[in-house]
Amino acid sequence: MSEQFDAVDVIVTKRDGHRLSDAQIDWVIDAYTRGAVAEEQMSALNMAILLNGMDRAEIARWTAAMIASGERMDFSGLSRPTADKHSTGGVGDKITLPLAPLVAVFGVAVPQLSGRGLGHTGGTLDKLESIPGWRAALSNEEMMAQLDDVGAVICQAGSGLAPADRKLYALRDVTGTVEAIPLIASSIMSKKIAEGTSALVLDVKVGSGAFMKDVDRARELARTMVALGTDAGVRTVALLTDMSTPLGLTAGNALEVRESVEVLAGGGPADVVELTVALAREMLAAAGQPDADPAAALADGRAMDVWKRMIEAQGGDADATLPVARETEQVLAQSDGVLTELDAYAVGIAAWRLGAGRARKEDPVQAGAGVELHAKPGDSVRAGQPLMTLHTDTPERFGRAFEALDGAVVVAPAGTAAPARPLVIDRIDA
Amino acid sequence: MSEQFDAVDVIVTKRDGHRLSDAQIDWVIDAYTRGAVAEEQMSALNMAILLNGMDRAEIARWTAAMIASGERMDFSGLSRPTADKHSTGGVGDKITLPLAPLVAVFGVAVPQLSGRGLGHTGGTLDKLESIPGWRAALSNEEMMAQLDDVGAVICQAGSGLAPADRKLYALRDVTGTVEAIPLIASSIMSKKIAEGTSALVLDVKVGSGAFMKDVDRARELARTMVALGTDAGVRTVALLTDMSTPLGLTAGNALEVRESVEVLAGGGPADVVELTVALAREMLAAAGQPDADPAAALADGRAMDVWKRMIEAQGGDADATLPVARETEQVLAQSDGVLTELDAYAVGIAAWRLGAGRARKEDPVQAGAGVELHAKPGDSVRAGQPLMTLHTDTPERFGRAFEALDGAVVVAPAGTAAPARPLVIDRIDA
Repeated sequence: MSEQFDAVDVIVTKRDGHRLSDAQIDWVIDAYTRGAVAEEQMSALNMAILLNGMDRAEIARWTAAMIASGERMDFSGLSRPTADKHSTGGVGDKITLPLAPLVAVFGVAVPQLSGRGLGHTGGTLDKLESIPGWRAALSNEEMMAQLDDVGAVICQAGSGLAPADRKLYALRDVTGTVEAIPLIASSIMSKKIAEGTSALVLDVKVGSGAFMKDVDRARELARTMVALGTDAGVRTVALLTDMSTPLGLTAGNALEVRESVEVLAGGGPADVVELTVALAREMLAAAGQPDADPAAALADGRAMDVWKRMIEAQGGDADATLPVARETEQVLAQSDGVLTELDAYAVGIAAWRLGAGRARKEDPVQAGAGVELHAKPGDSVRAGQPLMTLHTDTPERFGRAFEALDGAVVVAPAGTAAPARPLVIDRIDA
Repeated sequence: MSEQFDAVDVIVTKRDGHRLSDAQIDWVIDAYTRGAVAEEQMSALNMAILLNGMDRAEIARWTAAMIASGERMDFSGLSRPTADKHSTGGVGDKITLPLAPLVAVFGVAVPQLSGRGLGHTGGTLDKLESIPGWRAALSNEEMMAQLDDVGAVICQAGSGLAPADRKLYALRDVTGTVEAIPLIASSIMSKKIAEGTSALVLDVKVGSGAFMKDVDRARELARTMVALGTDAGVRTVALLTDMSTPLGLTAGNALEVRESVEVLAGGGPADVVELTVALAREMLAAAGQPDADPAAALADGRAMDVWKRMIEAQGGDADATLPVARETEQVLAQSDGVLTELDAYAVGIAAWRLGAGRARKEDPVQAGAGVELHAKPGDSVRAGQPLMTLHTDTPERFGRAFEALDGAVVVAPAGTAAPARPLVIDRIDA
């Protein structure tokens, strides 16, 4: 087959700082997906994009070409409007679990197509799989039926959405090109747009435990994604939220399900409740219900009802006892004072090393493993008090988890103020 | 096997604009050569090097690592000093052919390990293979014996020298990373240093027919290579020479051999003679004979004698009739005036399309194909006069050769001065 373009010409265009044409973008994504552009060629192009950038129109076209590489979903047959949330990933970020049923309470369909965890942030499917019987894989028909009936579904994303992105992400992961904002934005948004939602709220995390360590880059990513969604006809808004310290008091699969259930029961840590309600308000507003009161639906049990129906619709036993790790160790405070820092990245790495996450895609995870926090920044602590409990089935992992936590906790003299960090840092809309 | 480094960390170091450490460079070249760093990883690193550069010490280490990937030759057992020449490639650049025997006249051993042509510049081995019986492949023992006996050898470079470079060059060729000066310089110099010569003269071409189109980049490349050679203990000097128009009056394999023999017979085009003598003086000076008179050795037949012995030592018949293409067509002047431009790149492409070069490594070349010039910039021409003769065995190729030449020739009104372009633009030494 004769090709319309030469891969080297496309690479050289971006290498030399020029715009890629629409036709070059369409061709290179399609040719890469079908194997006519080699991995090493796409890798060089990715590095040139990372270092030389793409403008808004190029990113939009790149995203559209990735969407065109696969199938699109269509929720227009549903009796309800749809709203979707995407988080760029953080430590202890279990918000999808209470959020999906909470928004569904108001008659909005929430299709959360999710993934498994890789690295120091957990995966939503890994968390739910700690519930006995729950299954992640649904057919399209099952998903649609559940959306119409229950209103909320959290399931595995099918392999048909944006296959170019899957191939590209695997390549970026091994070639030092994950960090390119145009590529991150188009990766996320190609899948979200292909999913066919009409409203999308993005939770862009900032801080040590997040992919984006600084607020300016996070804001640039958020703006890029909001522009992409808006250009594609999706009502899109982004919140920039703090990820310098873990969200809530747990990082780990069953540990986070337990905490999510506490939130659905009207309790739970204040930061998890705050972010769940903030994101629910944004999703509901985008779906046409700016006056809905999600906090009330957490307090009065309506969100919990939808949660149970959602879990049970996917074979899970919502009332079952959750798995518990076989072994625990504690991290103790070394001095009296105020906890001023509790580093999210270190806690994420510790939870990962304890068995909550995986190093390779094919690795299993431990349902009970993870880190439980007993204090958060701003809390007063006393020497010898437990600051964390580490959970694992495989105690030989404690050593490396403790190593990860070395220096992660700062206790300052009593009276020191912990740095004031608002949870929601900024809001970006079109 | 556990690796000392992670490829992604090495890529990210250069991507983020930092120096690669010696240990990172040694590891990445070695790991790439043995397949532990993947093509797509090296491709991303190459693009990061192209866009973010390397400093002198990094380039020297990169070159040393490539040399260490293979064997080194050792000419210290020869009874003569050695001198070598490398050209970055140009259209009609047959200088190696008269130069090697010319320098050998003075008792200096000239080991010219050469390659075949790919693209619009010809390959020295392709040219010599138009001589009936001549063979390019010699064993190390044959080469050493010929150097001791005849003094000059032009033969195929063995595959044992800098194997990392061969693998890397093939990758750069398909990933838009050929143009990185650190990579060009280390590619050339790794092979030349591994060859073990004690003196090296570089002919860095500048202009449309050369790899370097502008003089500043050519000078940067020349300086980088001279520094690399000097740091490795090789007496190295570079001439920057003009490649805006072809060298001499022929581009093509047998056509260039014929012209080289004219030069060795004391005749030939002035520019070919000028550059041959200039490079010979540099090589002889670097080999300790600053007062040698190479022009005399062309005029009195001594260089021709060595040429014949060199060709015959490799099985060639120096007196045989050279192959002639089956078909010719002419390009005629469209008006009276002065030839002011005759574009080297266009002539190179035309010769290539006529069959003198190859599009893929495995393609054959036509010995007789190419372009013969009847006028050069500065010459007065009359409408209807032949400016070029195109030669090929396959007349269906004439069409695309004429296309390549469209706009390549500029004839200005009589009295117009052609741009003055000195052949030797600059000289760079340590």
